[in-house]
Amino acid sequence: MPRISTKGMRMPESPIRKLVPFAEAAEQEGKTVHYLNIGQPDIHTPKEATEAVKKADVDILAYSHSAGNESLRTGLAHYYRNHHINVTTGDLMVTTGGSEALNFTFGSIMDEGDEVIIPEPFYANYNGFAIQSGVKVVPVEATIHNGFALPPIEDFEQLITENTKAILICNPGNPTGYLYSKEELEALAKLVVKYDLFLIADEVYREFVYDGVEHNSIMTMPGLEQNAIMIDSVSKRYSMCGARIGMLVSRNQNFMRTALKFAQARLSPPSYAQIAVEAALETPETYFTEVNDEYVSRRDILVDGLNSIEGVFCPKPQGAFYCVAQLPVDDADRFAQWLLQSYDYEGETVMIAPASGFYAQPRLGKRQARFAYVLEKETLEKSVEIIRRALTEYPGRYI
Amino acid sequence: MPRISTKGMRMPESPIRKLVPFAEAAEQEGKTVHYLNIGQPDIHTPKEATEAVKKADVDILAYSHSAGNESLRTGLAHYYRNHHINVTTGDLMVTTGGSEALNFTFGSIMDEGDEVIIPEPFYANYNGFAIQSGVKVVPVEATIHNGFALPPIEDFEQLITENTKAILICNPGNPTGYLYSKEELEALAKLVVKYDLFLIADEVYREFVYDGVEHNSIMTMPGLEQNAIMIDSVSKRYSMCGARIGMLVSRNQNFMRTALKFAQARLSPPSYAQIAVEAALETPETYFTEVNDEYVSRRDILVDGLNSIEGVFCPKPQGAFYCVAQLPVDDADRFAQWLLQSYDYEGETVMIAPASGFYAQPRLGKRQARFAYVLEKETLEKSVEIIRRALTEYPGRYI
Ligand SMILES: Cc1ncc(COP(=O)(O)O)c(C=O)c1O
Ligand SMILES: Cc1ncc(COP(=O)(O)O)c(C=O)c1O
Repeated sequence: MPRISTKGMRMPESPIRKLVPFAEAAEQEGKTVHYLNIGQPDIHTPKEATEAVKKADVDILAYSHSAGNESLRTGLAHYYRNHHINVTTGDLMVTTGGSEALNFTFGSIMDEGDEVIIPEPFYANYNGFAIQSGVKVVPVEATIHNGFALPPIEDFEQLITENTKAILICNPGNPTGYLYSKEELEALAKLVVKYDLFLIADEVYREFVYDGVEHNSIMTMPGLEQNAIMIDSVSKRYSMCGARIGMLVSRNQNFMRTALKFAQARLSPPSYAQIAVEAALETPETYFTEVNDEYVSRRDILVDGLNSIEGVFCPKPQGAFYCVAQLPVDDADRFAQWLLQSYDYEGETVMIAPASGFYAQPRLGKRQARFAYVLEKETLEKSVEIIRRALTEYPGRYI
Repeated sequence: MPRISTKGMRMPESPIRKLVPFAEAAEQEGKTVHYLNIGQPDIHTPKEATEAVKKADVDILAYSHSAGNESLRTGLAHYYRNHHINVTTGDLMVTTGGSEALNFTFGSIMDEGDEVIIPEPFYANYNGFAIQSGVKVVPVEATIHNGFALPPIEDFEQLITENTKAILICNPGNPTGYLYSKEELEALAKLVVKYDLFLIADEVYREFVYDGVEHNSIMTMPGLEQNAIMIDSVSKRYSMCGARIGMLVSRNQNFMRTALKFAQARLSPPSYAQIAVEAALETPETYFTEVNDEYVSRRDILVDGLNSIEGVFCPKPQGAFYCVAQLPVDDADRFAQWLLQSYDYEGETVMIAPASGFYAQPRLGKRQARFAYVLEKETLEKSVEIIRRALTEYPGRYI
């Protein structure tokens, strides 16, 4: 029998996947499961986008330009300029989700054996893209005690080797929700310039920032023109995850030309979705204010609720719609499974994402879990109550 | 300045791309250019598909299952069973184009340095996917003299090394249009079983077969259950290239589980397109008969026309919508550029795809070019006339 690749064997399964059968079983038993584990927003997609698709008269659904329709790229350049990011259509490319933008980036700047430094905990799929490209992820530890702020620059510097090609940050962060300050970004900028590295910033949550704090994009930082690569996506911004449209943005033309070759190999990003996104760019500002207000209330309910539970510690994040909490349990993986398998409060339970999947060194996240606040406030209130009660009954309780 | 990867440097540009500026310049000069170089059909997308998208009420455009919507997979399994391919929904996965199915396959079965044997000339983007996965393409030469039939099995066997993991064929072929016979496929089947290799068949043109000849899928061959991987796509079948929906089909569950991990990393295939494709599966049979009748007439005009030109030799293919012709020129790349830059007949010229881009050993295709017959009959007739006249004037004529 022919064998699969070692690459294939090393590809991680989705960190949540092993819990799915338990969630299904719980539902089959008649339990209601509240899914705090997933980042699929329940916010509606802007009508502008869905109506544009309904109205489009498609005779031949043809390939688009490999970098995306010219009209969409013009619209995106305009969007960025409105957000103080001065780029032209030549500095950006439409990809099949932020996922593909990450994949093209890894392939364009790293060879087998090259290394990318990433503060952990980090978005689990970075592992998958790294393995696909034969690249090694070198984690640098961020800690829950300061809300997952940027690790000291010395910690990065110590990890830089001949093979280091890039530093990858997620800002604001999934899973942490942490929003990097201007000072933190400037320190990173100095470092990458010093060592001739790329700085990749995954800014797919760039518009989800709260408490009046400003988001700083690496694309606005002077002196980083040749180093900065931004990963972006419409998935969360317009709650259109299913569109599969992301953006790759950089002023480094050598990099963009290289990424375009990867884009040409796969022909084009999806056409219907490009129609939807071009229209979504016209979404009125009120949509975002409403959505952000909603997320702030949800965050406060969830994070304040979690912190009111004895033994739970959860830094309050200022961006994205996730938080990572330290739980008074022996093992968050076991606790998450127990919640589905052995617990319910009045017929209801919750599914959470154990944080081990977001760490390259899984022991670090052993007692932590990620919670997404993409559900309605009542559900979040109920979920906090379920967790509070569950923790009093969980046999592996440990403070 | 940070550097791009050697992988990025090795990624081939689209073989047609270097000619694009010349085509643009020709148009700017007021010439009409007939594009015989591209595989974007001018056939309309089935109304069933486009209407379904118009009618869909999308409130939240959410991620789908990573392997595609269950309802679509059920529909596809049904489609395959109607085409004598007995598979279940577990044997297939919806991908973002056949392109992604190829990418997942390379990643799932090959590590850096592994080898895949491919009869040449072959679809140029196989090179790009191979480089992305760090895989080596080992070409085995097919020849125009027998219409690009399968090279002798001994030729394959001689190329098999410890690192060989798969043989990849395209059936019917792009760029050759050659349709493999049952005997040829059986010989390959024996070979891959003997050496424990995967047999990957790119069958994206499976429904474009002419002259009453039958298409044989590797998925129907007994004894190949663990070896056979089929790449499929709706791009050409329903003229919906822009949908970006392909399929990965195999009964090897270990392989499918591995490919699913790659699929999970990139989250999901596009949602609007899945709606379109599910509806496209209901396209009445008459659509295909009409389309195939049209392609047969086009093929006959183009191929018979080319063969009527002195010094041109073009085998008549029985599938897909391409042919490769030997031209009486010194260098097909130079000829293609000259057609755009220095020639016109009554203000019109043609763009052709030099075959060198489809060969791993480019000298083999030096005097060959690929022609796609995806344009209207009158345009094809005119194009043949233009080529006939151009060849009498081309300074590099060489018989
Ligand atoms: C941090 C981060 N980056 C990238 C992505 C990829 O998103 P998409 O491919 O839908 O744009 C996600 C999705 O959850 C994410 O959380
Ligand atoms: C032989 C072959 N395989 C695969 C593809 C990829 O097509 P898609 O990604 O649109 O499904 C093409 C497109 O031209 C092709 O010709």
